[in-house]
Amino acid sequence: MTSSTEYAVRLSDVEIARRRIDGLIHRTPVMHSRLFDERAGRSVFFKCENLQRVGAFKMRGAANAVMALDDAAAAKGVLTHSSGNHAQALALAARERGIAAHIVMPENAPAVKRRAVEAYGARVYPCAPTLCARETTARDVQTQTGAAFIHPYDRAEIIAGQGTCVMELLEEVPDLDAVIAPVGGGGLLSGTAIASRALRAATRVFGAEPAGADDAARSLAAGRLIPQEDPRTIADGLLTSLGILTWPIVRDHVEAILTVPDEATIAAMRLVMGRLKIVIEPSAAVAVAAVLDDAFPPPGQIARVGVVLSGGNVDLDHLPW
Amino acid sequence: MTSSTEYAVRLSDVEIARRRIDGLIHRTPVMHSRLFDERAGRSVFFKCENLQRVGAFKMRGAANAVMALDDAAAAKGVLTHSSGNHAQALALAARERGIAAHIVMPENAPAVKRRAVEAYGARVYPCAPTLCARETTARDVQTQTGAAFIHPYDRAEIIAGQGTCVMELLEEVPDLDAVIAPVGGGGLLSGTAIASRALRAATRVFGAEPAGADDAARSLAAGRLIPQEDPRTIADGLLTSLGILTWPIVRDHVEAILTVPDEATIAAMRLVMGRLKIVIEPSAAVAVAAVLDDAFPPPGQIARVGVVLSGGNVDLDHLPW
Repeated sequence: MTSSTEYAVRLSDVEIARRRIDGLIHRTPVMHSRLFDERAGRSVFFKCENLQRVGAFKMRGAANAVMALDDAAAAKGVLTHSSGNHAQALALAARERGIAAHIVMPENAPAVKRRAVEAYGARVYPCAPTLCARETTARDVQTQTGAAFIHPYDRAEIIAGQGTCVMELLEEVPDLDAVIAPVGGGGLLSGTAIASRALRAATRVFGAEPAGADDAARSLAAGRLIPQEDPRTIADGLLTSLGILTWPIVRDHVEAILTVPDEATIAAMRLVMGRLKIVIEPSAAVAVAAVLDDAFPPPGQIARVGVVLSGGNVDLDHLPW
Repeated sequence: MTSSTEYAVRLSDVEIARRRIDGLIHRTPVMHSRLFDERAGRSVFFKCENLQRVGAFKMRGAANAVMALDDAAAAKGVLTHSSGNHAQALALAARERGIAAHIVMPENAPAVKRRAVEAYGARVYPCAPTLCARETTARDVQTQTGAAFIHPYDRAEIIAGQGTCVMELLEEVPDLDAVIAPVGGGGLLSGTAIASRALRAATRVFGAEPAGADDAARSLAAGRLIPQEDPRTIADGLLTSLGILTWPIVRDHVEAILTVPDEATIAAMRLVMGRLKIVIEPSAAVAVAAVLDDAFPPPGQIARVGVVLSGGNVDLDHLPW
């Protein structure tokens, strides 16, 4: 499981992140449901990042990245291209530091997402809905402003920030046989792996991925980074490919990536909302579905599992069932 | 605000209930949202009984009533007629004590509610969907079994059990200017009023009621108990009238009952699910809507308010927006 590779992040980076973002993020609750346990045939502990600020774990990494900037860099503001939770998180983190946030967003992004980012005081730059247009526009904004570009996952401070989540989980429930987190770009999963392996080596680390966007599972099987092309899933937070920094960590410290079809994700989302009475987004439900899947190691091997519920930002007008 | 009347419940009964149900109920979290506060113009603290066992505060009163029975009475089981949260709570409380639960339920109750009660090991007795048929069937079951009838709200142990909720809330957030709870039969509101007035007299106590089932508001205005006829509201937990035991407490210890139209309830439910990422049922949203209403005392008078989110049992296939 180990390798001589130098990884982007070590446990000490996660510990520094934790101190840096203290007071800027919520210590989210860990939920546990006897009814859910009966269904799963084991004890399941849910780390509720859907109850995090901006409704997703992304606030951890964004806060760490923004607070890590030196004053001269920070004064020029921060920049990203995203229409998702990272955009809101970066906007809020920038507001907390009192600096500008510039968010490049495809012009077909839902108006509600644009308004959410603007409500945090960020400036939105609409662009054509292609990766090329996003990158070109971001480069233009950077040229004009000098703002620091904060990648949504492939950046050391982001990975370290996301790793603080499992650190809290393991403090509250130390004797977990396994933890599982969803994987898109791999910021959350790689941070989880680094912190979890270092803090409690006996805890097995799994990723969960939509079957229709399974680049991490295929990469792990092939032993090389395979980018995602044409992802098809309702888990809109997990469309991206692993990155240069996240891939080596996932490769060396994650035991397996479990893939689940969207139908199982939808059923898991409904189950959590119905039983735990909390709102989760499809990307979070992917990890829940993986634990309920027959491919997950049996309760005899894994009696106690921690699941990172990554976020709760879902369109309540269009629930997927 | 006080009266020489002897009430069904005193603070000491709530304290006894608390010790009696310890370990049988969850100490539910108190949630707080900066975004919600901005919207409300004041600090709002949500006591999350939607995260209680069986998804509602009803577990508190049912557990207290079941555990208060002496062994001889308990051995004959417990009985109620209900299709709602009280039925599930009584079934679970009986299972915890290892005794039988008999639940009379209208034959047109949703199959999911019947299955939920049966999943806790209770026996369900279907009857015609009239109050008369429910009472006749319940009497028959009682004749056959000798089971103790546990009224859903008009019983001292039920009121005392529900009062434990605000006790926890005031421990966690002592300096509340007001608390508000929804009112149907008045078990929750009267328990809240008894405990809150005794523990912190400076905290004002309000009830919240659907405009289409406003018997408590009309009773308080008239100074006499006016039963609810033909209730029309989506808040299906608040259709009932105040009872013989709950009415005097509400009359003497609740400052005002605020009524809200269903549209405001639906908007509040959506707001809580969207912002706090927790699932609440319409009956809980009634109290949220009341705090957001212009009729609620201004922030200058009430800067910090506690809201009891009474439950989270909602049909996710038919959300009311």
